[in-house]
Amino acid sequence: MKVAILGVGLIGGSIGMAARARAGAQVCGYDPDEGVRAQALALGAIDTQAADLAGAVAGSDVVFIATPIGVLCDTVASALGAAGPNCVISDVGSTKRIVAGAGADARFIGGHPLAGAETAGVEHAREDLFDGATWYLTPAQGSTAGALYERLHRLLRSFGARPTAIDADTHDRLMACVSHLPHVLANLLVAQAASLPVLRDGGLGGERSQRLPALGPSFRDATRFAGANSAIWTDIYMSNRDALVACVDELAERLAQVRALLSDGRAADVTAWNESARADREALLDGALAGERVYELRASVPNRPGAIAEIALALGRAGVNIVDLALAPSAEDRPGGLALWIAGDAHVQRARELIAGLGFPVVQA
Amino acid sequence: MKVAILGVGLIGGSIGMAARARAGAQVCGYDPDEGVRAQALALGAIDTQAADLAGAVAGSDVVFIATPIGVLCDTVASALGAAGPNCVISDVGSTKRIVAGAGADARFIGGHPLAGAETAGVEHAREDLFDGATWYLTPAQGSTAGALYERLHRLLRSFGARPTAIDADTHDRLMACVSHLPHVLANLLVAQAASLPVLRDGGLGGERSQRLPALGPSFRDATRFAGANSAIWTDIYMSNRDALVACVDELAERLAQVRALLSDGRAADVTAWNESARADREALLDGALAGERVYELRASVPNRPGAIAEIALALGRAGVNIVDLALAPSAEDRPGGLALWIAGDAHVQRARELIAGLGFPVVQA
Repeated sequence: MKVAILGVGLIGGSIGMAARARAGAQVCGYDPDEGVRAQALALGAIDTQAADLAGAVAGSDVVFIATPIGVLCDTVASALGAAGPNCVISDVGSTKRIVAGAGADARFIGGHPLAGAETAGVEHAREDLFDGATWYLTPAQGSTAGALYERLHRLLRSFGARPTAIDADTHDRLMACVSHLPHVLANLLVAQAASLPVLRDGGLGGERSQRLPALGPSFRDATRFAGANSAIWTDIYMSNRDALVACVDELAERLAQVRALLSDGRAADVTAWNESARADREALLDGALAGERVYELRASVPNRPGAIAEIALALGRAGVNIVDLALAPSAEDRPGGLALWIAGDAHVQRARELIAGLGFPVVQA
Repeated sequence: MKVAILGVGLIGGSIGMAARARAGAQVCGYDPDEGVRAQALALGAIDTQAADLAGAVAGSDVVFIATPIGVLCDTVASALGAAGPNCVISDVGSTKRIVAGAGADARFIGGHPLAGAETAGVEHAREDLFDGATWYLTPAQGSTAGALYERLHRLLRSFGARPTAIDADTHDRLMACVSHLPHVLANLLVAQAASLPVLRDGGLGGERSQRLPALGPSFRDATRFAGANSAIWTDIYMSNRDALVACVDELAERLAQVRALLSDGRAADVTAWNESARADREALLDGALAGERVYELRASVPNRPGAIAEIALALGRAGVNIVDLALAPSAEDRPGGLALWIAGDAHVQRARELIAGLGFPVVQA
């Protein structure tokens, strides 16, 4: 099988490695950046490099387009023009309706692997990047060729991924709700906090260090990703703005509802609303994270190098896996809070014993 | 000096320990729960226990009220009735206007230490809980007695805290913006995500495990505290609902503004808005966390016991302190993302070397 990859960064490079190692494919790569092409070749992400897009695509059975979203549609069109009649073309863009127009061509199937968001660059490409990862595919109903879909699906399975068909609208609404909207709200929260006179002017005595304590762990968590890389995020916001605007409108409605509960002082309804959110959170996150129920532990740990290491190492030695953890930093040297999520009754009990045995106060939240 | 503490849980107990050890005070405690009183006595949080509120307050120089918010106002009134003319009475409630009415009495000064949110119960009380912590005080202009304020201020300094005067309105607006509003938004986000058919019905093939991949690290961070303990949070929402409603209204306005940018496709304005949020975030959080600039590193680490320990231990040995860290969990065994915040140019460089030396891909975000 011949595979072409247009854009050989983290995702494109990882596709190349997986295709070579796991599907025995011949991989040809093209990237407008010559240095990146050479690096991909040196790292074994591709077998050969092409000097232009058409050269990479010619004679391919599968083409993956892994460019930034801003040039995605143009690249899809060029690839369709250069590819033969029996070639399947896919992309890895994080929104899918923008390329749905290409779905009129039976050879195009939109794609979005949920992997690789943490780092960038072909130097971080890995053959196993997609192991266990959902890989959304957005075949066009009635137009996508079955044989081409089958070929793409089988190839992605060989990468270790879980190809999952979803329509482009649903995909984009999902991403708007669970990724793009949280980013919008994080931006709004920091802007609103920064506009508070007491924070803006260092108003409490004018000492900058006095800003910190007011900003607790919930604010930090909610705004950790505020002002994310504009080079990526403006494209994401723009390419998915219809779905995002619909999400914003729904949030505004929900916000107005809870505002009414607060304004009217309806404590019982606020409790019910909060309990419902707790149940939703558990269903969405805790339950989904592992086959077993996930428990949250809260420990008080001194804010010094090595303290977290002691806990993590002790749990690691005992075979207790930390599903997730969050550290609430504190000023200077006073103890801070550590939240740990552990899956399974036996493991959480063992984790409590181990943490307490190290001398750190710990409770189950 | 005689100190009375009404409500001897985590905060009240810690006040007792600090007052005894650092101010040489005689501490008498009262709690409606006899078992808690006995435990506080056994742990050395108080010197003596009283059978009722009046017995604890009688003859005191300083009274701290550390009850749940729901019974705070009644307890303040009772304490003012039982206390002598030269006694200063303060509380530790997380909203301050609700007790501002008591400010008409020159002996009352509202208070709010920013400490102890991670755990609860007198068994976690610590003498050093307030070391370095901002302790907001809301003296009433023109009514609070100077000598009593001085006494309270000096006592809090002896605890290691940083007493900081602030008016009750500003305090409550600040908390509404940086604590209560993020909790509201977290609740709304999980409710909205849970209502998506694709998540609600396990729609993608009906497998529950398929819910997970859609929920990336930003959603997890933003909703970590969704559905927080209703026993505490309904009181907080209700007691600060005026300020919170004002915050909600401001957020709704800001949301409408960014909705217009998205809806009109104004990419350059979206970029400017996002860059502004980035600057706000850095000013509020990164800059405030340490004297030095804080850098974010992103590493790819395998999701197995001990992996985080290796990194934390290596950094600990080298004396590099992790200001904050966040782990993005992943399904099964494929590698996940780890974000680390490190203060100072030299430390972040060393951290990069150490993490890369362990074989984990790492980049500066």
